[in-house]
Amino acid sequence: MANYKSVGFEHVRITGGFWKKRQEINRDVTADAVYRRFQDTGRFAALACAWREGMPDRPHYFWDSDVAKWIEGAAYILEAGRDEELERRCDEAIADITAHQDETGYFNSYFLSVAPDARFTDREKHELYCAGHLIEAAVAYAHATDKDALLRAMIRYADYIYRVFYIERSAAFDAGGHPEIELALVRLYDATGERKYLELARHFLDQRGRSGRDGPIAPFANMRYDQSHRPLLEQETPEGHAVRALYIYSAMADIASRMDDPAYFQAASRLFEHIVARRMYITGATGSTHIGEAFTVDYHLPNRTAYAETCASIALALFARRMMETRADAVYADTVERVMYNGALAGVSLDGASFFYENPLEIDPAFADVNASTEEKQHMPIMQRKAVFDCSCCPPNIVRFIASIAQSFYTVSEADGTVFVHQYAQSTADLGIGRLTQETDYPADGRITLRIEGGIRRVALRIPLWCRTFTLSVPYKMTDDYVYMDVPESGEIVLDIPMEVQLIEANAAVQNNAWRVAVMRGPVVYCAEGIDNGEKLRSLSLVAGAAFTQEPCELFGLPVLRTRGLRRTGPMGLYARYHREYEEAEITLIPYYAFANRGESEMNVWLHILPSPI
Amino acid sequence: MANYKSVGFEHVRITGGFWKKRQEINRDVTADAVYRRFQDTGRFAALACAWREGMPDRPHYFWDSDVAKWIEGAAYILEAGRDEELERRCDEAIADITAHQDETGYFNSYFLSVAPDARFTDREKHELYCAGHLIEAAVAYAHATDKDALLRAMIRYADYIYRVFYIERSAAFDAGGHPEIELALVRLYDATGERKYLELARHFLDQRGRSGRDGPIAPFANMRYDQSHRPLLEQETPEGHAVRALYIYSAMADIASRMDDPAYFQAASRLFEHIVARRMYITGATGSTHIGEAFTVDYHLPNRTAYAETCASIALALFARRMMETRADAVYADTVERVMYNGALAGVSLDGASFFYENPLEIDPAFADVNASTEEKQHMPIMQRKAVFDCSCCPPNIVRFIASIAQSFYTVSEADGTVFVHQYAQSTADLGIGRLTQETDYPADGRITLRIEGGIRRVALRIPLWCRTFTLSVPYKMTDDYVYMDVPESGEIVLDIPMEVQLIEANAAVQNNAWRVAVMRGPVVYCAEGIDNGEKLRSLSLVAGAAFTQEPCELFGLPVLRTRGLRRTGPMGLYARYHREYEEAEITLIPYYAFANRGESEMNVWLHILPSPI
Repeated sequence: MANYKSVGFEHVRITGGFWKKRQEINRDVTADAVYRRFQDTGRFAALACAWREGMPDRPHYFWDSDVAKWIEGAAYILEAGRDEELERRCDEAIADITAHQDETGYFNSYFLSVAPDARFTDREKHELYCAGHLIEAAVAYAHATDKDALLRAMIRYADYIYRVFYIERSAAFDAGGHPEIELALVRLYDATGERKYLELARHFLDQRGRSGRDGPIAPFANMRYDQSHRPLLEQETPEGHAVRALYIYSAMADIASRMDDPAYFQAASRLFEHIVARRMYITGATGSTHIGEAFTVDYHLPNRTAYAETCASIALALFARRMMETRADAVYADTVERVMYNGALAGVSLDGASFFYENPLEIDPAFADVNASTEEKQHMPIMQRKAVFDCSCCPPNIVRFIASIAQSFYTVSEADGTVFVHQYAQSTADLGIGRLTQETDYPADGRITLRIEGGIRRVALRIPLWCRTFTLSVPYKMTDDYVYMDVPESGEIVLDIPMEVQLIEANAAVQNNAWRVAVMRGPVVYCAEGIDNGEKLRSLSLVAGAAFTQEPCELFGLPVLRTRGLRRTGPMGLYARYHREYEEAEITLIPYYAFANRGESEMNVWLHILPSPI
Repeated sequence: MANYKSVGFEHVRITGGFWKKRQEINRDVTADAVYRRFQDTGRFAALACAWREGMPDRPHYFWDSDVAKWIEGAAYILEAGRDEELERRCDEAIADITAHQDETGYFNSYFLSVAPDARFTDREKHELYCAGHLIEAAVAYAHATDKDALLRAMIRYADYIYRVFYIERSAAFDAGGHPEIELALVRLYDATGERKYLELARHFLDQRGRSGRDGPIAPFANMRYDQSHRPLLEQETPEGHAVRALYIYSAMADIASRMDDPAYFQAASRLFEHIVARRMYITGATGSTHIGEAFTVDYHLPNRTAYAETCASIALALFARRMMETRADAVYADTVERVMYNGALAGVSLDGASFFYENPLEIDPAFADVNASTEEKQHMPIMQRKAVFDCSCCPPNIVRFIASIAQSFYTVSEADGTVFVHQYAQSTADLGIGRLTQETDYPADGRITLRIEGGIRRVALRIPLWCRTFTLSVPYKMTDDYVYMDVPESGEIVLDIPMEVQLIEANAAVQNNAWRVAVMRGPVVYCAEGIDNGEKLRSLSLVAGAAFTQEPCELFGLPVLRTRGLRRTGPMGLYARYHREYEEAEITLIPYYAFANRGESEMNVWLHILPSPI
C-alpha cells in the first residue's frame, strides 16, 4: 500500500463541456429546488428545535442530515464563486444550529424537540449519522467562506461525542446504526490536524461488530443490515443496506490511508473487489433489492426490480475515491467514472429539478401495478423522477456530488510527486507545484490535450478499462492501466481515446442478462426507450457486427445511437408454435442517465443480441 | 349455448398407461400419505369438536375442508374398488362429523370448538367453503359406498344454510370470502334433484359483489381479492386470488348449464377466454404473484416468481370441465389436458409422497435466498416438494383430482346423442347407450383405437390444438377442433396424432419470454434441469431446426428429449466486451411435471432459441 493524496476539487475549475453544464444546472436549479423543498417540508424550520407535540411538520430523525448535505453542497458551489443568496440561506440555517446546540455541544433537532430524554439510546435513530453530515457541512462551509461558526460548533459536538463514546462510553450503544460519523471525523482530522478525531473514527470502526450490546435493527433479523454482523476486518462480502455498507467501507479506506493500516486496506480492498466483480450493476449502482435496500447474493442483479439507490451509487464513488488514495490501480477511478456518468447522474432529471431514489435498468409500465387486489403491493420502482421524497437523502447528495465532481480528478503520489490524472474533463487544476489544463470535449470526444506548467515532472494518465486502443503523443510505460510519462519540454501531452460504441456482456451467472448486451459509448451506458423504439423492448434484438451511427443531441448532451436490428413478431395468441419471422427494426439508444425525461415509457439497458444476421 | 352432459368418471375405467400408473400411486401412496399427515397434525381429531383453549393442535378454520377433500378423494378411489381400511378411515371421520353436528344441522369443527359464538359472522373464515367441501365429500362417498350418513347430515346442513342465507338472511354476510359452497350446492342438486340447492347456489352468485354489507378481506385493500368488487355478471377480467376466482367461475358455468342461463354463460366464457389468452402459464397454472395468490395484469407471467398454485391449476380444470358442458369447443378440453399433464401433475412427486404448493417455471438455487440481512425475505417458491404444508389444500386436491381424472373424458350432446371424446387414455367407458373402449398408449404415443359397441351412433373426437396433422380412419367433418363422424359398422375408429416435439413461443407482451421457447411433446411441457445440463441454464440456447431425439424413461413415464444446442460462455469478470464465442452443448429435457425429483437443481421451462445456426 502506497499513499496518494487527493487534489481537492476546489483546486480544479471545470471550464467547459459535459460537467460544466451539469454543474451550472446543479447550481442554478437543483440546489435551489432542494432548498425550497426542504423549506416547504419543515426541514429548515426544525433546526430551531421548537417543535412540540401537536404542531405540524414533526421532525424526522434524519432531517438534520438532509439539511447538512444541502449546506455541504451549497458550500461546494460557493467554492466556485460567491453567491449572496445561497450564503444567506446557509447562514440562516447555521445560526439556528449554533443557537440551539446545547451546552454539551450536542445538536440534533429531532432529539432536542421530539425526544429530549432519549439522546444516544437508540443506535438506529441516525444521531451519529446526522452529526457526521453536520461535521462534513461545517468543514466544507468554513473552507468555502472562511466563516467558522458551524465548524466551531461541530468541533464542540465532536468533542462531546469523543467524550461520550470514547472516554465515558456512556451512550447506550457503541456503533451507530447508519455509518457516516466515521467519514466525517476523518475529514475533521484532515481539516484540523487533531488526531483524536481520527482515533475516534477508528474506534467506531473497531467497535462495529464487536460490541457486546449493539443489537439488530428492527425489522432486520440479523446485524448484516448495518454491517455489524462481525468485525469489519473480518468481513469478506458486502452485505446489508448498500449505502450504509459503502459509507463504512469508505471510512475503512480512510483509516487505511490516514493510519497506513494494512489490515484495513486489505479488508477494504477485498470488499471493493467483491462489489465490482459480483454485486454491481453496469451503471455503478448497487443494492439488488428494496428489502433492506441491500446487497443480496453474488450475481443477483435483477434489472426491473433493481433498487440501485442514487445514494448508493454516490457512496460507491466515495469509496472508490478513497481507494484511489491507497493504490494506483485504474479500477478505482474507472468505478468513479462508471458512477459519474450512469448510476449517480440518472438520479436527477436533465433539467435538474426532479429525482430518482431508485434507478432500475428496465422499466415496463404495463407491469407497473402487478397486483390490484391487495394492499401489499409488489414493490416496483417509480417510473418518473419526483420533486422530492419523504426520505430525501438522494437530492442533496446529488447536489454535493456534482458540485464536487472534480474531487476524483487528480491524486499526487506522496513517494515521487507523480500527478495522476484519473478523469478527463475540460478544466484547469492548480496543483501547488504546478498547473494542469485539460482541453477536451470528453466524453463527447475522446481527445484530451494536457498542458502542464510549473514543477510537475511526471504524470500518470488513466487508460479507461473500457478502452481498447489509444494513442499518446509521448513515450510512456503502462502499469495497472495507468500510463506513466515524464512531462515533455513543451508541457503538452495528447491522449486520444476513441469513443467507440461497444457491446458489453455480463458474466453467465447473471442469468437475467443471458443472450443480452448493454451498449456503451466510452464510459456512458446507453438504453432503449419505448418512446423511440415502440413497445415491448425485449422483442428487439441487436445484431452482432451491425454498425452504429451517432447523432448529436442537445437535450442529452451526448449523441443518440442508432443501429439496424430485428424485431421479433410474436403470435397473436398467448402461446403458438414458434415461427422464424422477424422484421427489420431501427433501434435508437440514448444515454441511460437521460431516460425518463420525455414522459413515462418502457426502458431497457440490456438488449437481446443475435450473434449473426439471420 | 347448447348442453352437453358430462359422463361421470365412475363410468370410465382406466385400464393401462400413463394415468393407470398415476392412479395406482395416488391410491397406494398419496391418499395414505395425506391421511397420515392429517392425522399427525390433528385435522381428524379436530372433527370431535373437543378442542379447548390450552390444548395442542388448535384447529384452523380451513381444516374441515382438508379432511373433506381427502374423503372426497378416498370416495373416488373407492369407486374403482372397495378398500376396507380406506373405508374405515372415512367412516371414522364421518362418525365424528355426524356425532358433533349440532341440532340446526351446522357443522364446523373450528367454530364448534374454538369460536362457538362467532358462527357466520366473518366472511373470511371459510365456513361456507368448508361446508361446500363437506357436501362434495358427502355426495361422493354416498355414491361410492351407498352409505348415506354423511350425505344425510350434509343435506341437513345445506338446509340450514338455505334458511340462514336465503330465507332469514340472518348471517352477518351475504357471500362467503372463499367460494366453494356454490359448486357443492349444484352438485347436491345434481345428486338429489332438489332445486332449492341450485337456487341457493345461484343466490350466492347473485349476491357476490352486490351485497351492501360484505366488506373487503384484510389485509386486502379492495374486493377484487375475493371477486366481490362488482357483480359477477359484470366482471370482465379475472382478478384476485386465483383459486377463489376459478371456483366461482366454475359455479358460474354450472349455473349456465343447469339453468340454461345465457348471462352466466357469457360472463363465464369471457372470463375463461381472458385467462387462456392473457393470464395463464403454459402449464395451465395461474396466479402470477404470491401476494394474494392472485391474478395480476395481462401478460404478466414471471417464471421464477410464479405462484402457480397446484390448487389453481386444478381449479382451472374444474372450470374448463364445466365449460365443456356449455359448448363444443376444444379449447376447454385442451385446457383440461394442459392442466392434467403439467400444472396439476407437477404438484406431486413421482413417488406420490410429497407436494408443491407453488409451481414456478424456473428455479435458480443460487438466488434462493436473495436477502440474508432482513427478516422480510423476498418470497421465493420452495425448490423441493414437501410432505405437507400448514396450508394443506393442495395435497388432498391432488388426491381427488387424479382419482377423478376421467371426469373430463366424455360428454354427450343432449341434442343429438353425439358422444364427445375429449381426452385420450387406455380405458373403457360405459355410457349407458353403449360402451366405448380406447386402446392407446397416449401420451407416450399418439395412436388411439376406439372400439364402440351398443347404441352409440355418432362421435366427436377432439383434435388437440397443439396437433398440426392427424389421420383418421373414417370420414369426418371438423368444427371448432372436434372431428365429427358416424360410427362405422365395424365400430372401430383409429385416430393418429403424431407425438411431435414442438417449440412454442409466447406473445411478445410476455416480455420475460422474449427470444425464448418452451418445448412441448404433445400435451406435455418439457423443461431443462441443472442435473442434466449443468449450471446456468439461461446460458443454453436451442437452435431452430435442430432435431430432437427421444429416449424412453421409466422414471418419468415419458421420453427424455435431447437436442444439439449451444452454450454461451460468458466472461470471467462481471462485465466484458461481447465476444461471439459459443460451445456446442447437448441439451436434455424432461417432462415439466417430473422436475425436482432428483434433488435440488436449476430448472427452466422457457429456453433461449437462436433462429439459425451460427
